[in-house]
Amino acid sequence: MAKDMTLLWGSGSPPCWRVMIALEEKNLQGYNQKLLSFEKGEHKSQEVMCMNPRGQLPAFKHGDNVLNESYAACMYLESQFKSQGTKLIPDCPKGQAMMYQRMFEAFALTDKMASVIYYNYKVPEGERHDSAVKRNRETLKAEAQLWEGYLQKICASGQESCCFLAGKCFTLADVAVFPSIAYLFRFGLSEERYPKLAAYYNCLKERPSIKASWPPTWLETPGQDLLKDL
Amino acid sequence: MAKDMTLLWGSGSPPCWRVMIALEEKNLQGYNQKLLSFEKGEHKSQEVMCMNPRGQLPAFKHGDNVLNESYAACMYLESQFKSQGTKLIPDCPKGQAMMYQRMFEAFALTDKMASVIYYNYKVPEGERHDSAVKRNRETLKAEAQLWEGYLQKICASGQESCCFLAGKCFTLADVAVFPSIAYLFRFGLSEERYPKLAAYYNCLKERPSIKASWPPTWLETPGQDLLKDL
Repeated sequence: MAKDMTLLWGSGSPPCWRVMIALEEKNLQGYNQKLLSFEKGEHKSQEVMCMNPRGQLPAFKHGDNVLNESYAACMYLESQFKSQGTKLIPDCPKGQAMMYQRMFEAFALTDKMASVIYYNYKVPEGERHDSAVKRNRETLKAEAQLWEGYLQKICASGQESCCFLAGKCFTLADVAVFPSIAYLFRFGLSEERYPKLAAYYNCLKERPSIKASWPPTWLETPGQDLLKDL
Repeated sequence: MAKDMTLLWGSGSPPCWRVMIALEEKNLQGYNQKLLSFEKGEHKSQEVMCMNPRGQLPAFKHGDNVLNESYAACMYLESQFKSQGTKLIPDCPKGQAMMYQRMFEAFALTDKMASVIYYNYKVPEGERHDSAVKRNRETLKAEAQLWEGYLQKICASGQESCCFLAGKCFTLADVAVFPSIAYLFRFGLSEERYPKLAAYYNCLKERPSIKASWPPTWLETPGQDLLKDL
């Protein structure tokens, strides 16, 4: 039981989801938690600002140690609970290199995705341009194709029924990347056009850590089709 | 001697500089390297694209292991050469938490900095807005003030002549953040208005790993004053 941990989170946010998956994988259930609403602006509340001065979620702490950046929380949890639950960093240099590389490439994917999905939220009305929307979509398309190619390569090389991003095992690369891939499909990415990403998504969504942390708002409301032609 | 490593890099790029600082700190000198010119578009050359399909620098490999994301390269180098050179991840949970948190917060700083410094490069002429420029500057100012506050807190608590971001020792947090802080001053940030950031910058720039990897173009050409009023 992780009673000395507190997580303030928002439903569907990839950074929040990463931390929740890592906590499940490390068998750190039972932490104090509070689901906040982005729509109601609760991520800018005093409670969040005290832990995370940027007013972002997640806000996470273990004892007095504050780890609001999702990657920081995941790395820290793996380091502090190394022998507990799933081992999330491979030992061999090759697997480790692949894991770190894919894990940090996820920033590019998440950024490019946010530029498309949150365009109207991020860019004030008077500053919006169709040319920017089109360019952002093309950039995201190239990025999604890159990940489709990565998975094609991995899945072609193994006999496993489920592929992971850094080899035979589920690692921090999957913790980091899966929420963004799920987001793409939530926003309508075509399973036909991206079959390897779809297979990865459909396989991992059955994983206990991911099922247990599935965004509650996604269960209640339908997805969108913004990315269906990507 | 690190003859089984290859680094393609560009002068002044914070991600490239991070990898170079980490290599120096781990006593991994003597690697194969090639300085490429962003101005001439050499980061989009076939040589780079083969290693890094996004056409970005750094492009780095150790044997067959490719680590193009600067954070991936730094984490990997620390893990593979743990007992060599500077120990870049503290052992104690508190130091480790602080290190990871600051290290990953650097993404926010680097992004906000790039939105100001590279605005004209990133945004096509017909899509530029004074309102966006102003907002980006305000966002960067708040971010710089946050880091000034972090250093104020650290320096107030110790008697050391030189402060580091995660406590008493130089860590991956400094490897990750220092190049961006140096960039701010290169672009004219006021030492008077940000005295703690300036003290940190002036102290660390004398560190051997940082001196050895100082951007060669910065030695040849003067800085700019874009951020002098920030």
